[in-house]
Amino acid sequence: AIVAHLQNFLTPHRLAGRKVLITAGATREDIDPVRFISNRSSGKMGYAIANAAIAEGADVILISGNSNLPPPANAQLISVYSAQDMYEAVMFNIESADIFIAAAAVADYRPAQVAIQKLKKTAQAELHLPLERTTDILGEVAKLEKRPFTVGFAAETQNVANYAWEKLSRKKLNMIAANQVGKNQGFDMDENALLVLWEGGEQDLGYGLKQDLAVDLLDLVIKRFMLTKHTDKVTA
Amino acid sequence: AIVAHLQNFLTPHRLAGRKVLITAGATREDIDPVRFISNRSSGKMGYAIANAAIAEGADVILISGNSNLPPPANAQLISVYSAQDMYEAVMFNIESADIFIAAAAVADYRPAQVAIQKLKKTAQAELHLPLERTTDILGEVAKLEKRPFTVGFAAETQNVANYAWEKLSRKKLNMIAANQVGKNQGFDMDENALLVLWEGGEQDLGYGLKQDLAVDLLDLVIKRFMLTKHTDKVTA
Repeated sequence: AIVAHLQNFLTPHRLAGRKVLITAGATREDIDPVRFISNRSSGKMGYAIANAAIAEGADVILISGNSNLPPPANAQLISVYSAQDMYEAVMFNIESADIFIAAAAVADYRPAQVAIQKLKKTAQAELHLPLERTTDILGEVAKLEKRPFTVGFAAETQNVANYAWEKLSRKKLNMIAANQVGKNQGFDMDENALLVLWEGGEQDLGYGLKQDLAVDLLDLVIKRFMLTKHTDKVTA
Repeated sequence: AIVAHLQNFLTPHRLAGRKVLITAGATREDIDPVRFISNRSSGKMGYAIANAAIAEGADVILISGNSNLPPPANAQLISVYSAQDMYEAVMFNIESADIFIAAAAVADYRPAQVAIQKLKKTAQAELHLPLERTTDILGEVAKLEKRPFTVGFAAETQNVANYAWEKLSRKKLNMIAANQVGKNQGFDMDENALLVLWEGGEQDLGYGLKQDLAVDLLDLVIKRFMLTKHTDKVTA
């Protein structure tokens, strides 16, 4: 306890007085009252970033989809179910945020109709499930006139760096953290490997524990955030 | 510890020397390396039945899909992912089983094609996900020439008793436990309400903790199982 107290005392608290909004975990999109579409995200990366931001003295709001992780101490945890729920919770809190880090794995598509009753097995050997696009949370945040320093994630199974550069530019993000995912990597693991990109720069954070990568990523975020603030003032 | 030892000593152990095969939890059906279709089953009912069977002295094999529950002590836990994995694990172990209790929530349909790479968001506002039937585990077990005493579950959002009687008869089950499920009942809850049906009889176990319902359900299973064994001998 004394060591933790000392560590806390020694940490620079570069985000004191700053509000950081973070999304984490997997959204679930109902097919019927029993079945849903989801993904392998465990929430570990987003929760680790929340803890790193708390250690830097930030006021943290963590908007979490499905995850079995314990809520971080000293953060406001908002639990949501679907991509639409997450979108609404983000928009409700975005105006006062200084930094927005979108680490959740949000469904891109959801069933076009949610059945009110459990779908019965039929004689049919095949079925077609019609899907529709969900609201693009990062896209909507990027459109805001007064928007926070915005960090996205790109989880891909191939061509990770290319997709990430394209997403950074298309969504006008301030920064993007790219990682390779698949059946046995990236999701639901304690380790990850991150490549961080921003306009004019990149840094490969390499492979490591998500809690260590979260600290390194947040360090980059803080440095770029401070610079943006400085630039804003200069150009104003 | 002394009380537990006494309770263990006082329990009749009606399943000593009997092998009980139980399925539990939710299967997951991959759409691509990241996304899947699943359902709200937590595994609580199946794990509670496993613990009740262990307390009766049975050799328990628990075949579990996704669940965050700790493995029961003194049971063999086989972890599976998809409906096909669960089907194969059941068939591998069914021959030596005296009793089979299918408490898992198994996907009826799975994506007809599993994408090797993560599906990219497209410009399309709508998508169609083609689904195909999975193997009917209970149906395959019921077809076996030498099959164990077979207990199914019917989890429905409406007309629960009607569906359960129909399923008991169509699948030639020895017993079926029916319960109402929905967004806020049945799945992922500590309580449940079970109606148990068999050819010529039924018993409403009412509403209660899943661990208590499991003991009551297993008591019915054991009584019917013993009777079936007796009848077999008489008619042989």
